[in-house]
Amino acid sequence: MYSSPPALEKLVQEFSKLPSIGRKTARRLAFYLVSGDKKKMGDLAEALTEAQNRIVHCSCCYGFSESEICQICENPRRSREILCVVERASDILPFENSGIHKGLYFVLGGVLSPLDGIKPETLRIPILIERIEREGVKELILALGSSPEAESTALYIDRVLANSPVRRTKLARGIPVGSDLEFIDDVTMLRAFEERVGI
Amino acid sequence: MYSSPPALEKLVQEFSKLPSIGRKTARRLAFYLVSGDKKKMGDLAEALTEAQNRIVHCSCCYGFSESEICQICENPRRSREILCVVERASDILPFENSGIHKGLYFVLGGVLSPLDGIKPETLRIPILIERIEREGVKELILALGSSPEAESTALYIDRVLANSPVRRTKLARGIPVGSDLEFIDDVTMLRAFEERVGI
Repeated sequence: MYSSPPALEKLVQEFSKLPSIGRKTARRLAFYLVSGDKKKMGDLAEALTEAQNRIVHCSCCYGFSESEICQICENPRRSREILCVVERASDILPFENSGIHKGLYFVLGGVLSPLDGIKPETLRIPILIERIEREGVKELILALGSSPEAESTALYIDRVLANSPVRRTKLARGIPVGSDLEFIDDVTMLRAFEERVGI
Repeated sequence: MYSSPPALEKLVQEFSKLPSIGRKTARRLAFYLVSGDKKKMGDLAEALTEAQNRIVHCSCCYGFSESEICQICENPRRSREILCVVERASDILPFENSGIHKGLYFVLGGVLSPLDGIKPETLRIPILIERIEREGVKELILALGSSPEAESTALYIDRVLANSPVRRTKLARGIPVGSDLEFIDDVTMLRAFEERVGI
């Protein structure tokens, strides 16, 4: 059985390890890079190596950063009193794009899942609790996902802080702005209806 | 306006240059790589660098190879009398996967397109003609695409070889094996009907 040159096969294989990239797409990407200007391959390889060497987790919020403390955490104009807790570092971006959040972030690193052995200590929950107390956080926005695990993680954190003066909030669920009602899924409709607000 | 760390933005940018990878997918890929084991980034960077350094065009068929002459061209059991002409190096793979072609290949490097300045000399047509004469090719399979440009390229080559004894053929067009008739596009149906064969 014929196969492409080993270096090409290896590239296809590496691409197909990426999420949402199947064997066919991986092959198309590899052939595209190999067919064209070889500089494109070098540029991508360089960007990868740069990212590998430079990107670290901010030691304050655990988001991505190129320095010990990220630009959000070290910004003196951001409120230290409102802390937005997200699951993954990539969840910070949509908040920053909207520009609505003036406080800081905390990346939890996942959600509780006892069956998979993910306990409070596996996540950064103890670090979060300690930080809330140390820095006098006034409001904690639990911006976790809507999976059962994410919801129970938010509930768990809420319960741990039951005797703390910190206000705990979560994002509103409902109909996305600009969405047509007929395309709304059942669960979102249920939430939007249950959590309807006065006009 | 906030942006992710420069090295991460750069990676997103490089990924979004790839075909069929939009901004959102590029971002997902970059975040995926940065979030996980950093070895994954190194592996991909290495595969790219390897491919960049190793992959060359076979000096005989112009397909991808890691040596001066590719494994197909240097295989003594393959017939030198049947030559399959394809547009791109990546077009060789489906033939090899089916195992049906026992001859050699020739990568044309594109199709004629006078409006874009692609003339016979821009492609490898003179090299092809010279090779057919020199090596005593008996059959030339013109396996180019079905775009108007590809069809006129095949016609052009056929005409150049009008006085040559070499037999010129093209791939059969018709209903794909296993396809449901109701999903066949009009042009394919037209071809399949026109070029119907006796049972």
